[in-house]
Amino acid sequence: MSYRVMSAELHEHIGESVRIAGWVHRRRVLARVTFLIVRDRAGLAQVVVPAGVPVPPEESVVEVTGTVVANEVAPGGHEVAYGALEVLSEAEAPPVELFRPELDAGLPALLDHAAVSLRHPGRRAVFRAGAAAVGAFRATLDGLGFTEIFTPKIVGGATESGANVFPLDYFGRRAYLAQSPQFYKQTMVGVFERVYEVGPVFRAEPHDTSRHLAQYTSLDAELGFVRDHRDVMAVLTRVVRAMVEAAGLGAVQMPPEIPVLHFTEALEIAGADPHEPDLAPEHERALGAWALEKHGSDFVYVEGYPMTKRPFYTHPQPSDPRWSNSFDLLFRGLELVTGGQRRHRYADYLAVLGDEAAALEGYLAAFKHGMPPHGGFAIGLERFLARLSGAGNVRETTLFPRDLHRLTP
Amino acid sequence: MSYRVMSAELHEHIGESVRIAGWVHRRRVLARVTFLIVRDRAGLAQVVVPAGVPVPPEESVVEVTGTVVANEVAPGGHEVAYGALEVLSEAEAPPVELFRPELDAGLPALLDHAAVSLRHPGRRAVFRAGAAAVGAFRATLDGLGFTEIFTPKIVGGATESGANVFPLDYFGRRAYLAQSPQFYKQTMVGVFERVYEVGPVFRAEPHDTSRHLAQYTSLDAELGFVRDHRDVMAVLTRVVRAMVEAAGLGAVQMPPEIPVLHFTEALEIAGADPHEPDLAPEHERALGAWALEKHGSDFVYVEGYPMTKRPFYTHPQPSDPRWSNSFDLLFRGLELVTGGQRRHRYADYLAVLGDEAAALEGYLAAFKHGMPPHGGFAIGLERFLARLSGAGNVRETTLFPRDLHRLTP
Repeated sequence: MSYRVMSAELHEHIGESVRIAGWVHRRRVLARVTFLIVRDRAGLAQVVVPAGVPVPPEESVVEVTGTVVANEVAPGGHEVAYGALEVLSEAEAPPVELFRPELDAGLPALLDHAAVSLRHPGRRAVFRAGAAAVGAFRATLDGLGFTEIFTPKIVGGATESGANVFPLDYFGRRAYLAQSPQFYKQTMVGVFERVYEVGPVFRAEPHDTSRHLAQYTSLDAELGFVRDHRDVMAVLTRVVRAMVEAAGLGAVQMPPEIPVLHFTEALEIAGADPHEPDLAPEHERALGAWALEKHGSDFVYVEGYPMTKRPFYTHPQPSDPRWSNSFDLLFRGLELVTGGQRRHRYADYLAVLGDEAAALEGYLAAFKHGMPPHGGFAIGLERFLARLSGAGNVRETTLFPRDLHRLTP
Repeated sequence: MSYRVMSAELHEHIGESVRIAGWVHRRRVLARVTFLIVRDRAGLAQVVVPAGVPVPPEESVVEVTGTVVANEVAPGGHEVAYGALEVLSEAEAPPVELFRPELDAGLPALLDHAAVSLRHPGRRAVFRAGAAAVGAFRATLDGLGFTEIFTPKIVGGATESGANVFPLDYFGRRAYLAQSPQFYKQTMVGVFERVYEVGPVFRAEPHDTSRHLAQYTSLDAELGFVRDHRDVMAVLTRVVRAMVEAAGLGAVQMPPEIPVLHFTEALEIAGADPHEPDLAPEHERALGAWALEKHGSDFVYVEGYPMTKRPFYTHPQPSDPRWSNSFDLLFRGLELVTGGQRRHRYADYLAVLGDEAAALEGYLAAFKHGMPPHGGFAIGLERFLARLSGAGNVRETTLFPRDLHRLTP
């Protein structure tokens, strides 16, 4: 039997007999001929089948042997003239019509039928772009001397805050799903200096919004021996640039230097009350518009958020400890990345934690035994993909989302 | 201030003034001089400090400026002659002596003090090898047209079996931590044909053994359009060879062809009762010894395990359905990888699942709507690393292990 040829390679085989395999993407039975569009992982191929030859319904899996023929009016300029067809598995009628340029179904239906709707070339392209972006995240950090780590997702206590954790029965004890690898990645700076982790994080989000999920993929990085958060931002900018390029989902405005605003400037530009302790979504949108107009940038950094609004491990701004050495990276007017410099002195942790220090003994061990100035960031993969692909809801850029209502498929 | 130079690059800077930074790996105060060994992410550097200059205790984080001097008797043939020293953070005495060639502490102590014990160069090397092996897993599969996926770790029902799952309170509903991405990776074969996932899996193992963990890192792959499980084994062999080479942890015997035994032959070689339904640990050890002696191989495949001992999605051996198209890959006499061809026909699933089919509706949707013959495998990262590094316990090759008793650090 001839070697399987992918749809995207057919142009190299004009005049040859080949074998292709894939799903019946579309079947058009005309009076004198049947057009079969076969979808494989690389794309689509048109097969011309003589009338009378039985052809299985859409989404059936087939192997077709035939001759590649140049044809100007065929998609891609060539088609396969039928020789033989074997049905590997016959499909029931799909719940959505995958051959349409856009899927004609609401989000709940798409998610309920994810096993089929994800096969749509448009949907598939988004997740392939996501995989490429994650690859670029790792490749960029590998090139900078980072080491990949794998840390526990079951923890004895909450990491980011006491709220929004999923409790778990752990051999009869109470445990929690990790909200982030924050403590572990900081600890591992003590081992490798520069670390990253790509993995699931869990938030028991009680709100049903278009940007929150109960599980998402967090791209975490942390690095030691920084001067301050600006060194962290420099690494993040390289990472995000590589991710955007690898994803290849349309034009993104990203100048050589991403504009940076201090929190106080950001409030002013957004027209907010100067005493606001945080940026509201409408402020973020205003800053996104400002960055695009003034700097031709889809990205803008806001640094120096008030200490009161950042977690306890955040390093204060040395010149004025009301503000922090933390930052957010906004992408098209929405927070995409949070990061900053962390505290690295044991005494500082004891002072800020007070009575809570005892419960965090394992985490504090790293600081007790010597930690360099360090910082890091976390990128939400689904949110990045949503913003990049123009999806209005992170559920569209998650293979099988989990939220307040959804636990299947 | 001069640019930071890594310890491993010092030989390129003989005669120059440099800045190095890292942890005080060892401090040896002699009468006329103090030797300071500084550890950074790349290795160790010796600094010669004049007597009388105060030097912080071990594990403190320092920046040292000085001149690189060739010295035949210094480690690596060079050392840094002290110019200035800044203490970035002073450490309390470490709970284990990191400068010794081997850590002098039992496993519980090493794990309790993971934040410090992982800094030991020997420990660190194992986890860096693990990161390299995971990189090789991905690179090999990327090269074969696989796509990376990220799937839910919170699921509505058990995947592998009803036992050994962690129950979870999911917004007031009962849910479980995923025991494997099995159903999702099969579903995604319908989308991308070839997929992989690197992620945590969870097993509520009630047994306290040296080879089981409550959370481990599973390297999962699944591919469509296979003839049978032998195509899966061919991919696995390439993957494992690349992982072993990338890890670089000592000599591994891996001939061009890994020997393959049918389950019935394996029983015979192991001297087991021919009616045994599975291989016991002593049988696996005997097969490991056989493969090394007869084939000069640390690896041996066993295929054709009895259907009764394999999960419901396992494809039977077409020539004799008592046996299955599944396999294990043994590494030095221990099961390292389990894999096989899966069932791909919807009717087969309905027949084998009977009344249980309704509960798996989401999973079965993929088969209802067309799936090719496919198969896959899962490699346990910690077990691979343990076998490769000669560690007797998988807890030694897990950064922060989770088991029946351990939930911290």
